[in-house]
Amino acid sequence: MPIETPAYDDQNIFAKIMRGELPSHKVYEDDKTVVIMDIMPRGDGHVLVIPKAPSRNILDIAQEDLNAVMATVQKMAHAVIKAFGADGTTIQQFSEPAGGQVVFHTHVHIIPRFDGVKMKPHTGEMADNDLLAEQADKIRAALG
Amino acid sequence: MPIETPAYDDQNIFAKIMRGELPSHKVYEDDKTVVIMDIMPRGDGHVLVIPKAPSRNILDIAQEDLNAVMATVQKMAHAVIKAFGADGTTIQQFSEPAGGQVVFHTHVHIIPRFDGVKMKPHTGEMADNDLLAEQADKIRAALG
Repeated sequence: MPIETPAYDDQNIFAKIMRGELPSHKVYEDDKTVVIMDIMPRGDGHVLVIPKAPSRNILDIAQEDLNAVMATVQKMAHAVIKAFGADGTTIQQFSEPAGGQVVFHTHVHIIPRFDGVKMKPHTGEMADNDLLAEQADKIRAALG
Repeated sequence: MPIETPAYDDQNIFAKIMRGELPSHKVYEDDKTVVIMDIMPRGDGHVLVIPKAPSRNILDIAQEDLNAVMATVQKMAHAVIKAFGADGTTIQQFSEPAGGQVVFHTHVHIIPRFDGVKMKPHTGEMADNDLLAEQADKIRAALG
């Protein structure tokens, strides 16, 4: 018996980005998923994979959407490693505030990692917009 | 063009557990996945979802196995929340040493989270065996 979760609220930031109501640095899109730069990155090239269909998190996402998200996660893990010459990736998905979730539309974090470099703490500080644009270009090039 | 990854080595701990050469607290199994208690938990009820088929991490896992892993992750997220009265989950997957990976067979961490409780640091300290057995029982009951 699955536990109940709060209803999806379409006024979240990612829903607004996908409706074009807010800007983003988009690096990839297919019929079921979108990938954007995290504006509070925990490392260079930190991206978010977002399903287009509404869901709150791991607890209520449809299997089909979850599969599409993970196919894109795998593709992006290769792309960010190639784009930045990274040595690995850390992948995270947070569900509900206790789990670390801040935006209540399902998303998966992919953080390129480098030998000897720790992840930056989550400070809430916004990254430089030009730097994000440049990193997005590198990732698109690695995908192409 | 996917990046290349090191070859899979079947002498890793999870491969040995699945072959029955090492003990574990198994909480769930289906035709494609196994779920065991993490013996160095970052919180109560921390479990690992492991595909039965060999793969090193997100970079080389077959789509079909990744889908099976994520279906089990979703099932277990519900189960651990129900078993422990948790308020959310944190899900993590580490690829290559730089990404935080220590055992080189794909696995996904699910950590039940509670409002106001931080994740424990990864100290390398082993959890009490009886406590893990008790927590495994609770998760099996929540699945049943």
